[in-house]
Amino acid sequence: MSLVIVGSIGLDSIETPVGKVTDALGGSAVYGALAASYFTKTFTVGVVGTDFPKEHIDLLIKHGIIVDGLEIKEGNTFRWAGKYENWNQAQTLETQLNVFGDFNPILPESCHTCNSLLLGNIHPDLQLSVLDQIKSYNICAADTMNYWINGAKDRLDEVIKRVDIVFMNEDELRTYAGEKSVYTAAEVVLAKGPKLVVLKRGEYGSVLIGENMLFFCPAYPIVEVKDPTGAGDSFAGGFMGYLAKVGEMTPHNLRIACIYGTVMAALNVSEFSVIKLANHAWEHIQLMQEEMQGWMKI
Amino acid sequence: MSLVIVGSIGLDSIETPVGKVTDALGGSAVYGALAASYFTKTFTVGVVGTDFPKEHIDLLIKHGIIVDGLEIKEGNTFRWAGKYENWNQAQTLETQLNVFGDFNPILPESCHTCNSLLLGNIHPDLQLSVLDQIKSYNICAADTMNYWINGAKDRLDEVIKRVDIVFMNEDELRTYAGEKSVYTAAEVVLAKGPKLVVLKRGEYGSVLIGENMLFFCPAYPIVEVKDPTGAGDSFAGGFMGYLAKVGEMTPHNLRIACIYGTVMAALNVSEFSVIKLANHAWEHIQLMQEEMQGWMKI
Repeated sequence: MSLVIVGSIGLDSIETPVGKVTDALGGSAVYGALAASYFTKTFTVGVVGTDFPKEHIDLLIKHGIIVDGLEIKEGNTFRWAGKYENWNQAQTLETQLNVFGDFNPILPESCHTCNSLLLGNIHPDLQLSVLDQIKSYNICAADTMNYWINGAKDRLDEVIKRVDIVFMNEDELRTYAGEKSVYTAAEVVLAKGPKLVVLKRGEYGSVLIGENMLFFCPAYPIVEVKDPTGAGDSFAGGFMGYLAKVGEMTPHNLRIACIYGTVMAALNVSEFSVIKLANHAWEHIQLMQEEMQGWMKI
Repeated sequence: MSLVIVGSIGLDSIETPVGKVTDALGGSAVYGALAASYFTKTFTVGVVGTDFPKEHIDLLIKHGIIVDGLEIKEGNTFRWAGKYENWNQAQTLETQLNVFGDFNPILPESCHTCNSLLLGNIHPDLQLSVLDQIKSYNICAADTMNYWINGAKDRLDEVIKRVDIVFMNEDELRTYAGEKSVYTAAEVVLAKGPKLVVLKRGEYGSVLIGENMLFFCPAYPIVEVKDPTGAGDSFAGGFMGYLAKVGEMTPHNLRIACIYGTVMAALNVSEFSVIKLANHAWEHIQLMQEEMQGWMKI
């Protein structure tokens, strides 16, 4: 059982009300893969420049992540600088696409037998190209953002028709479906083919919406958030990592996947960059998952 | 087992994006009592003017609500006019206190054996006066608002020291405790004496926070909200009505109380004024409560 994650890999400079970091490891394929690595064999597919610190690649390898699909290209790595004044919305200060600007994901042979696929938030054309490259998966999820919903809606529609799970936040879901109610909006997405919409609500948790399924999952309570960057990616990574491990989208598996995703997101936001996500004790993750079950029990 | 609810009774003129009503029945003691009446014998204590339509009193009586404590005073009834452009925040257009301006709740003899008490959002001095009038209760809850947190903090502190359950929304809780984290803020409240903080999060549900308790309850999904007025009051009414019925604050009872409160709030917001809250089928309330349990089950 294994999971391929395709997305961005970058160096982030982030300022939040409680601190700042410069050129820290980030990107959806990094957050997602680190979170997933606790659950299943994980492949990360992305591109970095020749300036990308070797220690970051070593960190991924130390986590058992297969980096065959990590292309090192002449030039500089994708860089993003952002500031949070409001925890729910980053203000972009600078974006340097660099080698990520003409990212063309090529899945190496090693990925061709994976059973799960997580398409990080990249151009829908690239997501479709990945879908065309492998046939082995039985569970496929896609993340996206308003930028593609507004700018590449038709292509995103094609992606959505071909995946099982769609991750969106409230604003994305409403915009994509053109509906005020997130529940009506989720119906619009489900009607296109996916079996599940994972509605991300940040500090208010998440909701799983499927044809015969509704499940509310709270966020893990965090007294001091330090850096929300990558929360959605580590949530999706933990979610899909667990699903890849168990191999089947049963309602019970989806609920547990959601709780594990929530735990990974909570770890992620409680420190800058990937500090808390990397090298965390499995026992603690397990304990947090059990705690969460207790807080939902009637 | 019985519940006394003390609060406002008024005639509301409300405009929301989907409609408007003029001089409709409202007030915390009305929303709360109607919601509670499905669960337990309920007494409502408040004041109205001689202009108050008899049909509204008949509606309360039809719900089995004891109105001995409903004082009819020479003058006009409390009136509030508000508009919602944003569902979470009413914009007050006009407030006429009228006879409510010198409300002095006197609990009639019939209330003196009640086992539960819900102090609606009125001046803390009045809440304290009610607490001094009866001794029979074993569960007492108080609601409040930023107006008293900012303007009568010391007296509110006295109320909080003497009650078992405090209902607050996120903003009220943070302001009251002077803490950014709602979890830290809840600790501040619990340290003053209450056994439970009920954190109200509107469309994102509620959280029960006690010394050894944390419980997350989603909101019941509503596709079209019509009028959020009284959501918090009907939530508190359903919550306390159920608790009065079962008589004990066990963790299980509190969780079920929270779910019933959520159901009553959902009914309330899905129509203007008390339309959906009044004369609702018990079987449907029960069904909604069971549905909610299903959506939280792992």
